[in-house]
Amino acid sequence: MASSPSLKPIQEIAQRYGITSEYLIPYGSSMAKVDLSLIDPQASKGKLVLVSSITPTPLGEGKTVTTIGLSQGFNFIGKPCIACIRQPSLGPVFGVKGGAAGGGKAQVLPMEKLNLHLTGDIHAITAAHNLAAAALDARLYHEHRLGDQFTEQTGLPMLNIDINHILWKRVVDHNDRALRHIMVGVGGGVNGVERADGYDITAASELMAILALSEDLKDMRQRIGRVILALDTHGKPITAERLEVAGAMTVLMKDAIQPTLMQTSENTPVLIHAGPFANIAHGNSSVIADRIGLQQADYVVTEAGFGSDMGMEKFFNIKYRQSGIKPSCVVLVATLRSLKANSGKFNIKPGQPLPAEIAESNVELLAQGCQNLGWHIANAKRYGLPVVIAINRFPTDSGEELEYLREYALSCGAEGVEISDAFAAGGAGTAKLAELVSRVCEKQQEVTLLYPDNISLLEKVQTLVNTYGAKQAVLTAQASDQLAQLEKAGFGHLPLCIAKTPLSISADPALKNVPKDFTVTISSFRVSAGAGFIRAYAGNIMTMPGLGTLPAYRNIDIDQSGDIIGLS
Amino acid sequence: MASSPSLKPIQEIAQRYGITSEYLIPYGSSMAKVDLSLIDPQASKGKLVLVSSITPTPLGEGKTVTTIGLSQGFNFIGKPCIACIRQPSLGPVFGVKGGAAGGGKAQVLPMEKLNLHLTGDIHAITAAHNLAAAALDARLYHEHRLGDQFTEQTGLPMLNIDINHILWKRVVDHNDRALRHIMVGVGGGVNGVERADGYDITAASELMAILALSEDLKDMRQRIGRVILALDTHGKPITAERLEVAGAMTVLMKDAIQPTLMQTSENTPVLIHAGPFANIAHGNSSVIADRIGLQQADYVVTEAGFGSDMGMEKFFNIKYRQSGIKPSCVVLVATLRSLKANSGKFNIKPGQPLPAEIAESNVELLAQGCQNLGWHIANAKRYGLPVVIAINRFPTDSGEELEYLREYALSCGAEGVEISDAFAAGGAGTAKLAELVSRVCEKQQEVTLLYPDNISLLEKVQTLVNTYGAKQAVLTAQASDQLAQLEKAGFGHLPLCIAKTPLSISADPALKNVPKDFTVTISSFRVSAGAGFIRAYAGNIMTMPGLGTLPAYRNIDIDQSGDIIGLS
Repeated sequence: MASSPSLKPIQEIAQRYGITSEYLIPYGSSMAKVDLSLIDPQASKGKLVLVSSITPTPLGEGKTVTTIGLSQGFNFIGKPCIACIRQPSLGPVFGVKGGAAGGGKAQVLPMEKLNLHLTGDIHAITAAHNLAAAALDARLYHEHRLGDQFTEQTGLPMLNIDINHILWKRVVDHNDRALRHIMVGVGGGVNGVERADGYDITAASELMAILALSEDLKDMRQRIGRVILALDTHGKPITAERLEVAGAMTVLMKDAIQPTLMQTSENTPVLIHAGPFANIAHGNSSVIADRIGLQQADYVVTEAGFGSDMGMEKFFNIKYRQSGIKPSCVVLVATLRSLKANSGKFNIKPGQPLPAEIAESNVELLAQGCQNLGWHIANAKRYGLPVVIAINRFPTDSGEELEYLREYALSCGAEGVEISDAFAAGGAGTAKLAELVSRVCEKQQEVTLLYPDNISLLEKVQTLVNTYGAKQAVLTAQASDQLAQLEKAGFGHLPLCIAKTPLSISADPALKNVPKDFTVTISSFRVSAGAGFIRAYAGNIMTMPGLGTLPAYRNIDIDQSGDIIGLS
Repeated sequence: MASSPSLKPIQEIAQRYGITSEYLIPYGSSMAKVDLSLIDPQASKGKLVLVSSITPTPLGEGKTVTTIGLSQGFNFIGKPCIACIRQPSLGPVFGVKGGAAGGGKAQVLPMEKLNLHLTGDIHAITAAHNLAAAALDARLYHEHRLGDQFTEQTGLPMLNIDINHILWKRVVDHNDRALRHIMVGVGGGVNGVERADGYDITAASELMAILALSEDLKDMRQRIGRVILALDTHGKPITAERLEVAGAMTVLMKDAIQPTLMQTSENTPVLIHAGPFANIAHGNSSVIADRIGLQQADYVVTEAGFGSDMGMEKFFNIKYRQSGIKPSCVVLVATLRSLKANSGKFNIKPGQPLPAEIAESNVELLAQGCQNLGWHIANAKRYGLPVVIAINRFPTDSGEELEYLREYALSCGAEGVEISDAFAAGGAGTAKLAELVSRVCEKQQEVTLLYPDNISLLEKVQTLVNTYGAKQAVLTAQASDQLAQLEKAGFGHLPLCIAKTPLSISADPALKNVPKDFTVTISSFRVSAGAGFIRAYAGNIMTMPGLGTLPAYRNIDIDQSGDIIGLS
């Protein structure tokens, strides 16, 4: 699986799509960064296909395989296409089995380059993020140590960092539960100021969202300058600009702003760039990668994180709002198995045997689970765009079930339903899906945003939770205070990023299928001032996973020839 | 300073030295990794020149400038030469002004590539190191949580990690004093087991020393497997092999084992590889880089960390002992200013004005400081090799002083003394030095190791501190116990790595010039089982620097054109 005889030099792939060598920065023979000087804002010609899914289940829906497979399908039918995906994190690679390269005949190669360091972007984000953390703690220490002498000795103003309002944790690109809650500066003295701190996994850094939303290096520099690291003792934000560290952070991320070009198992070009989560951030690959793709190909297939209530919603209300990049079609990925799992009748756990009913033909069970699909179709149509259903086929799927699903989806307003056989057959297995999507993309459609900038943050919250089917949103007292403070501080115009579970359309993972008559409790609001959105927390969001009892790293090694084994 | 019109494509530089494109993995146009399949153990043809210095002072001796300049000087006189240097850490780059690229007309270009991410090696080490830390804490947590059920549920043996004997800290490549002493797993529960921990800067990781000493990927895999992460409750080592994480760590470092080829401002090839400290590790660039250099060029110039009591001593007793790579000549770098500073008559602090006497011609003062040079000449000759003195020239140097220094050095047994004008004149300014060194290299010499493998660790300690001029070494009770345990555990055959201050020949930074009648107290012993040496601590060694009040990051930014400014 690690490499393939069909792999072509990346320069050849790029050349075929009009990316000449002057715009290509090679990293070995199979990867290259693309120089941003290639981008011509007027040159966009392609159609963007946004791949989302039904509510995800432990069975997996195959969204990445379908994304990669569909991009191959377009090329199979003679329509030049580039896929844009997010960079995988090392956490899952070494934690649970499975990278993020797709699979079968629809994967990004060489898989080990994608799943490990790629061209260093995540490491650069880790370094930039932790530089700001070190700078903040150092300033805290020196001001604490020198007191009134600080300004005299340094010529710098006192920042008066409020030790109880330090908002910038540290990051590491591993699943490391012991770092969730830590004390730093233990013992005090020359070893800093003792305080409570913690680590997130790097993908959760605001810098990751910034990388994904930046238009160019200058824009990224300004966004990094706006990042709020802490509050001072007067409650005023201490930004990276105010700490004078934003320039150095940008310098560390200067190469990371260039997307990485790789290829699929069928030599379709893939741009890999940024990897923000779809709960505490907007869950989509970068604006820059999309722009390059739309300029160099007729179609770009990109994948949004989790179900349509998560990454797809955030694509529209955050990424489209900021960039104006407009999809022409939404593809919702489903499997018959995961639709049945969405019925809510089973308690399915990863790694445990599946209930027999799920693998057997059972139209009644499917019909129940299809309600979830119906909700996601309606949710996508809310934004004014046509919706296509891609059924990621399993050998056990029955004709009767597939026919039911087709009729149901059409009755919900889907433009069409097509089987994707990407895993087994690559682009040949998605040719019909690509034909369907390309026809659908021809319809001229405008995107309807869910809310304008200028309504209150509370109205934005109510608008969003109403789409989930909630009766209302309830704010804790803390959340209400924070909302008022954010509007007072001038952040009221920003779009919302609801940080909730992906495992239910609601904010409660126990509410399966299409929940009704529930409320959504918002416990807190936080601003991502550089990325440009307000995070509304509806439940606890894990931003530092842990390693399980049988972690994947145990099986990863080099063999006698020095080749990597055990990565998948 | 950032780039130069004279920069040539790295492929062209490589080609000129017989490294054809099949062995080259490009990272853009100015850097490439070299594939290890190039190495032919029989093909070594070059002479190795080891650059060391007198006892370092806050004034700086210009060892890197001289190393780079001398490599240019060899090429200037028509003798093909490659320089091998260590990779800089981000800590100093953002902390104090000054990267590690050399300077003036003797520097590695592009300087910002060298000083920032290079080709990702340090990031890979950070990731591999912290994966082991996460794995260890996760295992501690799961065994603690499940108790007797652990083996039943997982099929794995209990490791019974002793929480009071966890030897593997975490690492980050920044100066971050707040991370020196931390508590992890705070609060316990699902967030791990609460315990005291800390961070070192990445260069201090044993993995850095392993990278520098490994012969190939297989050797690195075995060394990583031997790394001791903790003791179990019976006092038995828990290695990375036993935790089943050594394979995954190696996979993360699979690209890092390839040295990075860059060029100097005069297009001399430079191999950059690994960056172990010269106190807690052996302080030299990699065995692999040396082998490639000695195979492809007639001369290799490499730099050992700190003075000859540190990196040079460790080159012989550790790196040469393990690899058999033999220098043909030692070059000791000195400046008149730093010799005067070594007299011990001044209290010089970085960033403060120099005493006037140091810049003025003063043969008497120089004569006192020259005793330090005399000791370092004798120290180098101990290993049976010829010694050349390189005087890194300053405009204020007087002819009278230079003549005194020459006579003194020759009287101490130096083979010759030559001025290096590398900063101002590049290779032209070191041509005479290169001529001298090349003549000296023609003498056939054998290296005499300071001690054989099979004497006791205590005898090794005494032998080493005797070279410093100490009356004796004194061991604390703890150190005595550890010594006995290490010998019992089968580590008695390993060479020693004395971790001491570089600012004195003794272990006390206050003892200047050539101290006498002192004792060296060893407070503890630790084994670097993968790197293959025993660390003997003579004083507290800082392995996590801090940021000062006016850190360098404040001046680093991008300009209007997107170019990096403020790096140096």
